[in-house]
Amino acid sequence: MPTLTGILETSLYVERLDRAKGFYRDLFELEILVEDERMCALAVCEGQVLLLFKSGASRDGIDTGGGVIPPHDATGDLHIAFAIPAAELSRWEDRVGRLGIEIESRVGWPRGGTSIYFRDPDRHLVELATPGLWSNY
Amino acid sequence: MPTLTGILETSLYVERLDRAKGFYRDLFELEILVEDERMCALAVCEGQVLLLFKSGASRDGIDTGGGVIPPHDATGDLHIAFAIPAAELSRWEDRVGRLGIEIESRVGWPRGGTSIYFRDPDRHLVELATPGLWSNY
Repeated sequence: MPTLTGILETSLYVERLDRAKGFYRDLFELEILVEDERMCALAVCEGQVLLLFKSGASRDGIDTGGGVIPPHDATGDLHIAFAIPAAELSRWEDRVGRLGIEIESRVGWPRGGTSIYFRDPDRHLVELATPGLWSNY
Repeated sequence: MPTLTGILETSLYVERLDRAKGFYRDLFELEILVEDERMCALAVCEGQVLLLFKSGASRDGIDTGGGVIPPHDATGDLHIAFAIPAAELSRWEDRVGRLGIEIESRVGWPRGGTSIYFRDPDRHLVELATPGLWSNY
């Protein structure tokens, strides 16, 4: 069995790239790796990238010069979760509140973790979760 | 600035849970963390979970007993990328081929990485990528 290192890229599809990019940059202070009119790639941590795609703009294949990225596109309210340390949950709640983002729900998990849920500007469901949610987290 | 550890959960929405679960289990030999009629959580590595949701089944909030997971749902062909070591690319290509999965495209990146692209049973665009794609990978 060859090695799988992890999930490298997680994608969201957004109506307005500038608005979505602003939201995730302001909230998480992520570095922009690449951006153009079609998409924006944000570094979440070493080896993990959040991809924001303008809705409908990736429905045709993209010729990179080194090969073609095949078509993809989606609509709806996706779910994505980010990991945060347990000791920093209240600081994250403060930060989310100061940015004017409404916390839609809180969940306490049987393993001891806590999640808070809120919406990004495209109504994607964003979760911040402390350890103690899954057996591998 | 509070700490962001990484992306914990990446979601795909699928027509048939059993088919999608079978695909990702067969391809990656992932451990199932939780499964029911609505969703399946697969451990990709420490601290990273792939969530497969039956299309339409999460449109209402889910009461966990410890709080409510708010609604989410999406349609379309999402994109997700997995990280693999460069030295194991050919073994991955062999494995994908032996499972009868057609490789739709290959891309060579300016930093030296290589990506292969194929479809899961719901036509989500799956990428396996070696290091040398992004500045943080």
